[in-house]
Amino acid sequence: MKIGIDMMGGDFAPKEAVKALNLYLSEVTTPANLFLIGDQEQIVPLLKEEGHDPERFAIVHAPQVIEMNEHPTKALKEKQQSSIAVGFHLLASGKIDAFISAGNTGAMLVGTMYSIKAIDGVLRPTISTIIPKLNGKTGLLLDVGINADCKPENLQQFGVLGSLYAQHILGIPNPRVALVNIGEEEGKGNLLAQAAYPLLKETPSINFVGNVEGRDIFIDKADVMVCEGFTGNVILKMAESIYEIAKERQISDDYLHRFNFESYGGVPVLGVSRPVIIGHGISNATAFKNMFLLAEKMFNTQLLDKIKESFQTASPE
Amino acid sequence: MKIGIDMMGGDFAPKEAVKALNLYLSEVTTPANLFLIGDQEQIVPLLKEEGHDPERFAIVHAPQVIEMNEHPTKALKEKQQSSIAVGFHLLASGKIDAFISAGNTGAMLVGTMYSIKAIDGVLRPTISTIIPKLNGKTGLLLDVGINADCKPENLQQFGVLGSLYAQHILGIPNPRVALVNIGEEEGKGNLLAQAAYPLLKETPSINFVGNVEGRDIFIDKADVMVCEGFTGNVILKMAESIYEIAKERQISDDYLHRFNFESYGGVPVLGVSRPVIIGHGISNATAFKNMFLLAEKMFNTQLLDKIKESFQTASPE
Repeated sequence: MKIGIDMMGGDFAPKEAVKALNLYLSEVTTPANLFLIGDQEQIVPLLKEEGHDPERFAIVHAPQVIEMNEHPTKALKEKQQSSIAVGFHLLASGKIDAFISAGNTGAMLVGTMYSIKAIDGVLRPTISTIIPKLNGKTGLLLDVGINADCKPENLQQFGVLGSLYAQHILGIPNPRVALVNIGEEEGKGNLLAQAAYPLLKETPSINFVGNVEGRDIFIDKADVMVCEGFTGNVILKMAESIYEIAKERQISDDYLHRFNFESYGGVPVLGVSRPVIIGHGISNATAFKNMFLLAEKMFNTQLLDKIKESFQTASPE
Repeated sequence: MKIGIDMMGGDFAPKEAVKALNLYLSEVTTPANLFLIGDQEQIVPLLKEEGHDPERFAIVHAPQVIEMNEHPTKALKEKQQSSIAVGFHLLASGKIDAFISAGNTGAMLVGTMYSIKAIDGVLRPTISTIIPKLNGKTGLLLDVGINADCKPENLQQFGVLGSLYAQHILGIPNPRVALVNIGEEEGKGNLLAQAAYPLLKETPSINFVGNVEGRDIFIDKADVMVCEGFTGNVILKMAESIYEIAKERQISDDYLHRFNFESYGGVPVLGVSRPVIIGHGISNATAFKNMFLLAEKMFNTQLLDKIKESFQTASPE
């Protein structure tokens, strides 16, 4: 498999991305072909510094960089030679099988939507986050921000996408899917939640277990939790702040340390036809390495084919 | 002033409510007249047990109890002799100045809306919660659950109500009001947040400081944070769960202990013409005492008159 990496994306680029290569290569037995996309005049000396033969990699020169604060659509249009634009070009033309970046999130999302198609039947691609559960397990929450306003059908599809991801990537058999809500019983919630509940309940391909409330987010009541991107984004950022609180209060606790989202790597855009993984701006070498491994796992488990199949079956005759 | 207390409400009723009387009477110099509403055959012996002269209080016999799991509207209608129904009757007829209960929250809300009018100009009464800030200060978040679907105008009014409450009850001069959102800049968010931002910005009676994100909830970026009741309820219950996590992980930390919402007492319904305070089902004696003190403070600071004035000025000529 061929993984494209935006070497210029993230606060510590390209240094941490280069360091990640060592971590990755020492961890896997049959590494993927790595396409390093970025300014070769910066990348090549760094590779040598870290003891790599630059010939070992496919270096794709992209002299421009989209900065973190640039307007996504404008920047992508004007900086055709940027690492993100070049990466999507390679991905769309099939020259790479997955694209990873810790750069401008907006540009990554715009690039995904315009360069890579949504899978047939998927109304709205989505991004998710890992949620550390108090009992040691791991949950998935989606959408966490790209779909701030949703229709009930979107939440239903997030349930299907999240369920497939939990099953094949997180290794959770028959994942329990729940709706984030403000009460336990069916019929509770805002108009969206009230309408989404019966749709989720009637979706045969998922194991819907009902509502979860704010108090259940960190409890192992469900594996996949769905909501619109407004609530999801607030939950994600509150969860991230728990780690900040622990740091500030100098609390050393294994569970609270799992809220260090920097180390998880990135989040995949789910529902699009090729693997795109978006990293946190502050991604370190471990985070980059985890993104390489995630891209590989998405490829090897044929997650996208499984999503395609699922949405094919579900579409009206 | 005359405070009515539902002695039968809450998981530990009437014991904890009776205990709270001692705490309250030993703390204040000129106590309010306390109207104890409930089953006098249960209350009187308990009062004697705790060393009180029952004659000291106005005991209002209410032999029925609305249980925690009963349907609010149905129960209120059918149990006219319940402590909640009797309490609202006393409040509506002016026989008490404030009503406190840790009973069935739904019944308290229904009772409030039907017995006590919204203040002229207030579109939707609201409930708020205290948010402990990492730097030791205290914030206010509203709505936390009675308005799951909101219009932009509702959020604007929550800003005004929250600001007055923060000023007069929490003692925060010129409180900073913020909109809970998923980005920093104006224009970010879902359709509701996008429409509410300019309304809040143009409200002269509040000190609007822009958006706060999930990561800012516990940070001292704003004193009053407004959102619709869906997001607010999820935030509140997540915050409550932080205390549960600390307990489970046996983390002893002063800040995390401030997430023990049981001890705060209750939340007032804001925007209605008389003080109604709703306690947590698990309210202990301290929580009850804090509710008595809050009722007193709302009365003494003339908060409701200030809210009335504010909405009078704001209404169109």
